[in-house]
Amino acid sequence: MFRFTLVKKDKKTKARLGFFETLHGKVETPIFMPVGTAGSVKTVTPDELKDVGAQIILGNTYHLHLRPGEDVVNHFGGLHKFIRWDRPILTDSGGFQVFSLAELKNITEEGVTFRSHLDGHKIFLTPEKSIEIQSKLGSDIMMVLDECVPYPCEKEYVKKSIKLTTRWAKRCKEAKKNQWQALFGIVQGGVYEDLRKQSAEEIVEIGFDGYAIGGLSVGEENRLMYDITDFTTDYLPEDRPRYLMGVGTPEDILECVSRGVDMFDCVMPTRNARNGLLFTSYGKLHIKREQWKLSDKPIDENCNCYTCKNFSRGYLRHLFKAGEILALRLNTIHNLHFYISLVKDIRNAIRKECFEEFKKEKLEMFKIGGDNV
Amino acid sequence: MFRFTLVKKDKKTKARLGFFETLHGKVETPIFMPVGTAGSVKTVTPDELKDVGAQIILGNTYHLHLRPGEDVVNHFGGLHKFIRWDRPILTDSGGFQVFSLAELKNITEEGVTFRSHLDGHKIFLTPEKSIEIQSKLGSDIMMVLDECVPYPCEKEYVKKSIKLTTRWAKRCKEAKKNQWQALFGIVQGGVYEDLRKQSAEEIVEIGFDGYAIGGLSVGEENRLMYDITDFTTDYLPEDRPRYLMGVGTPEDILECVSRGVDMFDCVMPTRNARNGLLFTSYGKLHIKREQWKLSDKPIDENCNCYTCKNFSRGYLRHLFKAGEILALRLNTIHNLHFYISLVKDIRNAIRKECFEEFKKEKLEMFKIGGDNV
Repeated sequence: MFRFTLVKKDKKTKARLGFFETLHGKVETPIFMPVGTAGSVKTVTPDELKDVGAQIILGNTYHLHLRPGEDVVNHFGGLHKFIRWDRPILTDSGGFQVFSLAELKNITEEGVTFRSHLDGHKIFLTPEKSIEIQSKLGSDIMMVLDECVPYPCEKEYVKKSIKLTTRWAKRCKEAKKNQWQALFGIVQGGVYEDLRKQSAEEIVEIGFDGYAIGGLSVGEENRLMYDITDFTTDYLPEDRPRYLMGVGTPEDILECVSRGVDMFDCVMPTRNARNGLLFTSYGKLHIKREQWKLSDKPIDENCNCYTCKNFSRGYLRHLFKAGEILALRLNTIHNLHFYISLVKDIRNAIRKECFEEFKKEKLEMFKIGGDNV
Repeated sequence: MFRFTLVKKDKKTKARLGFFETLHGKVETPIFMPVGTAGSVKTVTPDELKDVGAQIILGNTYHLHLRPGEDVVNHFGGLHKFIRWDRPILTDSGGFQVFSLAELKNITEEGVTFRSHLDGHKIFLTPEKSIEIQSKLGSDIMMVLDECVPYPCEKEYVKKSIKLTTRWAKRCKEAKKNQWQALFGIVQGGVYEDLRKQSAEEIVEIGFDGYAIGGLSVGEENRLMYDITDFTTDYLPEDRPRYLMGVGTPEDILECVSRGVDMFDCVMPTRNARNGLLFTSYGKLHIKREQWKLSDKPIDENCNCYTCKNFSRGYLRHLFKAGEILALRLNTIHNLHFYISLVKDIRNAIRKECFEEFKKEKLEMFKIGGDNV
């Protein structure tokens, strides 16, 4: 079961308010999905994810295939039961990590051969294999296997690549067995509008439960990413959710919601947290700076996350400088809460028909810089 | 304010049931104190410490002096406020870390000079300085600065050393300013009974709020540690708590409670957790073992900690093998819960006048081995 309902369309922008329903519950859109790489959103428990308001998380097929393996996860009754998360899960196809992490990639019509970045063993991933793994993981939303081209990339190569991505998408759809698992198609096409249009049309033609825009936020200019997103969403059906993969900064999320995107995922809040970079309503704050040594202020006075309700910048700085694991946890809780509150506020703004003003105000606020407040 | 109340003495062993009161609340004895090295019991929050039942934690003066420095902690209103822990805190004198971690130690009558293990800068620690730091940290119980001799150690050296420790203890007592902070003396004397007796008599003569047995669990045989503890508690007053510093395994705690000890601290539950070694009612369990790959059992079926209530050995093994921080957290919660439940059960057994049987049964159970259950 998977059903998307479009609740409202913004009048001044392409922003949309909606929700989708899965076997594990409902998800409101626009949504941000924390990344649970290898069966854990790094540093936090499922209960903490619920506390920060997470409605859905992402699992990485590549990582879970390597460790502990989909058969182990399946033995425990699927990913939800294994990691004790009873809300929706989206799994990627494994493709992105194959193209970015693994070694010795060899792409043929049949699939992609690569070596594990952990122990170097050879793996052959096909569209059918990706769906088989995701079926065993038991995610609510599966993604088709696509070829992720680097940026920049020759147009001639991208042209051939989107055709392969289309053929693989078809094979994924044919390989899908569980009715209750949704399957999303992925539009590729690099930074070439005509190829994005062609890819979108071909993928939509096959027919999926939702549509992702892949291959962005891989090194191109922000403006270009926004333009391609804006252009691409025009070729996606209104009655299906749109998912911009691997994006992005708080600014990116605001900009891309206004260009018609409903779903986002990114390691930025979690990874940056572990590097001491915190998101606040006034922009970025670097917790390790000397200036916070004696500060008894919370990270963000406008935030009511567990970290901000309890701990000072001074203490968080100390923990971070001392290499304490607690620092990574508390920073992660704050950053996830920030991202999830941002999309919640975005939904409210669309509901109240003031999204454009809300977006403008937020973008102005972010420019101040958390280190200056 | 510090007051110790002896509630009950076991009839068959030297075990005691009691409690002490501090400005930050009451602590029941026998008690185990989790170690909060540098302003954090590694990996866990204050709320999680309360969830596992911690009544008091320990802070390391050496670590806190180096980072963030006692003046920073004092700026925030002391250690309780800085780390957001509103229950009692005991701080050590810094001596133990100076003798075990720091470099280039030079001991004189005045104090000890050493170099920071972090950046090599030279520090001069005296009895007065240790008390000054602990006053600024604002712990409920301070410890006197003592000389920690290694094991083995020549008797002639230990003989001179305990005299220095006595003189330093006196200076600590004189340096103490805050009435509300308790100060414990420390008995040294290595493995020599006559020197332990002499040290105990001299330290008790000065008069402290409680008495610690120092310099044990530093490499000597268990049996010897138990014998020295047994011997030493006979020279300590009944109406003051006795604290066996840095001890130990669950077996050590049972053995030393039965020899008259009221307080324990050790990094074992937290450090072992981070190394994948878990304590169970059937003894030690190694979570990374292949045998747990498909196990849906909790770590310990007799345990009701957050980890055991929610997660399988199979998942915990996966998290640990994948290097996930969540593994370290969940393991730590379990091990701390185990230690704190053990002393709670010990208190109940003394209350019900069945401590000796309880101890025998526990020691038998531990021999089975958690990996065999």
